[in-house]
Amino acid sequence: MAGERIFLDHASGGPLLPAAKAVMEKVLAGHGAAPGGGHREARESREVLEHARKQAAEFLGVEDPECIVFTSGGTESVQSAIRGWGEGAGKGTLYVSEMEHPAVEAAVRRLERGGFKVVRIPVDGEGRLQWTKVKPSEGPGLVCVHLAHHDLGTVQDLKQAAVFAKSARAQLFVDATFGAGWVSLPAGLDGIDLLAISGHRLGAPKGSGLLFIRSGFPWRGQMEGGRQENDQRAGTENLPAIAGLAAALAEWGRSGEKFRTIAREVQRELLKGIQKKVSKAKLHGPEPGPDRNPAHLGMSFAGLEAEALALVLDRVGVAARGGSGCVTRDMKIPPAMKAVGAKPEEARSLILFTLGVTAPISDLSVAADLISEAVKRLASSLPEG
Amino acid sequence: MAGERIFLDHASGGPLLPAAKAVMEKVLAGHGAAPGGGHREARESREVLEHARKQAAEFLGVEDPECIVFTSGGTESVQSAIRGWGEGAGKGTLYVSEMEHPAVEAAVRRLERGGFKVVRIPVDGEGRLQWTKVKPSEGPGLVCVHLAHHDLGTVQDLKQAAVFAKSARAQLFVDATFGAGWVSLPAGLDGIDLLAISGHRLGAPKGSGLLFIRSGFPWRGQMEGGRQENDQRAGTENLPAIAGLAAALAEWGRSGEKFRTIAREVQRELLKGIQKKVSKAKLHGPEPGPDRNPAHLGMSFAGLEAEALALVLDRVGVAARGGSGCVTRDMKIPPAMKAVGAKPEEARSLILFTLGVTAPISDLSVAADLISEAVKRLASSLPEG
Repeated sequence: MAGERIFLDHASGGPLLPAAKAVMEKVLAGHGAAPGGGHREARESREVLEHARKQAAEFLGVEDPECIVFTSGGTESVQSAIRGWGEGAGKGTLYVSEMEHPAVEAAVRRLERGGFKVVRIPVDGEGRLQWTKVKPSEGPGLVCVHLAHHDLGTVQDLKQAAVFAKSARAQLFVDATFGAGWVSLPAGLDGIDLLAISGHRLGAPKGSGLLFIRSGFPWRGQMEGGRQENDQRAGTENLPAIAGLAAALAEWGRSGEKFRTIAREVQRELLKGIQKKVSKAKLHGPEPGPDRNPAHLGMSFAGLEAEALALVLDRVGVAARGGSGCVTRDMKIPPAMKAVGAKPEEARSLILFTLGVTAPISDLSVAADLISEAVKRLASSLPEG
Repeated sequence: MAGERIFLDHASGGPLLPAAKAVMEKVLAGHGAAPGGGHREARESREVLEHARKQAAEFLGVEDPECIVFTSGGTESVQSAIRGWGEGAGKGTLYVSEMEHPAVEAAVRRLERGGFKVVRIPVDGEGRLQWTKVKPSEGPGLVCVHLAHHDLGTVQDLKQAAVFAKSARAQLFVDATFGAGWVSLPAGLDGIDLLAISGHRLGAPKGSGLLFIRSGFPWRGQMEGGRQENDQRAGTENLPAIAGLAAALAEWGRSGEKFRTIAREVQRELLKGIQKKVSKAKLHGPEPGPDRNPAHLGMSFAGLEAEALALVLDRVGVAARGGSGCVTRDMKIPPAMKAVGAKPEEARSLILFTLGVTAPISDLSVAADLISEAVKRLASSLPEG
């Protein structure tokens, strides 16, 4: 057990991509002038900022960099997308599943308290949103959909989402804070009005994120004060993080296909290894393939409580976490597991293994061995059920 | 003119303190695990986070580190302080001057639209808030006061502010995003319920800030989602920035008196030099001394438009900016200049020279020469008034 650590919690955090680290270090060592202002140092910072915005637009495949607002991360992007839409619309309907990330759910509930109507989108047994089962309402609307689910790995069909949004005369918000990079986005973000990205899940720095806002509908910035980011997000620009995010996105533009191919292989091999060695292991969400985020495995180990298993995994050298890491303190069952109709003992047992671009493939049979060992250790420590 | 640049725009941005840079680089080179979670990497990150919180508490002189919430910067801290108070109170009165930073003013106006009452605190000719001229209202209240004014450099009397808040049975919010470090805070933050700090004005990284929230009154977090920061600020913690901020605050704890002493000297010498060489130069806000931020000089050069002068200053090698850098695009006169009764031609002419801990004192006579030269150049390029 004195071997190397196997880090399989990249969805929560992970090392920087070298390209992101290099540009951050450069900016951090510089004069630190804010981009706003007329002097030379400010102009230099402005060039870094606008170059970053162009890189981000290129990654998203959109023409106008001005549609991109840099934020402090995924949560801010998601919250300001939904609340900003709500403030622009004044009233209307939110179409959303019951298994979104807490940042989405909190914004939806906030608007609901303010008088907005909420229509819940049902899901199938693997977490796919069931668009044909939703009925459009009158008046303004916002369709909220994730790109890839944080607990289930399910990739959503954004074309169907866009068709529904159009039929409902609603805007479409895509929470791509999980899945961006790993899962391809529609060309030109066709049909998408708002899209949120979290930097640190892409090998970009913590504290970085972006919000894409297509023009043509009322939206109102949620961070108010100075006139940064085209009046859409006040606050001195976090230039090192922004430059780091943009460099990471550019790296994904260059090497994304390689990252995804490696992840697909690792995902299949790890899954195969675990299933071979742990008979009770069960995959939740879709099988590896186009419907699943290649960097994500969510598995239950029937009867074993996820938090406890994560601790034993840690002891044997594997860093992973229980499902819905953000909400487990008092909510023991991830909402997604309930939504897909998982059994309670499965829901309580969901462990996430998430990959980064740095996960070395050579460790995988060792990883499966260690996971098997952790499961056996924990099972043997419990009284017979 | 091929000489070194003289950077006098530290209030907008500036280089990192070496201590902040070192710790950031270390965290950026690490595993990048999020602090939430049960595995070893998460625990390591949690230790960094909680150490940072203790350092921040020590800088503020408060006992309970749990009163500190790390944010993405000054704007977020200010906005969530005021809006979070408003959401907790439900209704009530805001006591605030007409010359606060746009981040404060925007939050105040948002609450005003939501039905809150706003009582404006008058100021004297140097920007000191006139507490005896304000009358407390019934019901919940929030007194909003800055530590040091961004355009005038005026240091406010926080003891008087606390006495007024107490008499009004209101909470006291201090916007210390300008002045923290440079101006001392009351021991134990006595009488203060909410306090906002912006990292990058202290030599800490961009994208770092904090909000102090004393327990004992209803306040509600404005960034909702995951359960980070004791449920008070959702979003994966920006550990490199947080560690950088804490290291900078610790450095201020050790070296603050040295920083302030040097700044006071630089401030006096620069002012003397400018006034000697430019007859029309006029200081706004209090004279250097206990009532003025030692890192701040706000001066007008009668008749010369600030934006134009800033550009000529840049050409001769001095980086500075016009007053209210954040709002000059369509608002030509900084609200503070109106509030203190400055003449319109003075208000339009306000230039800020702001110091950092890295400003070398040897350049000061050169700086005064260059400023004088810029004023002459611009004046001679204009038709006789």
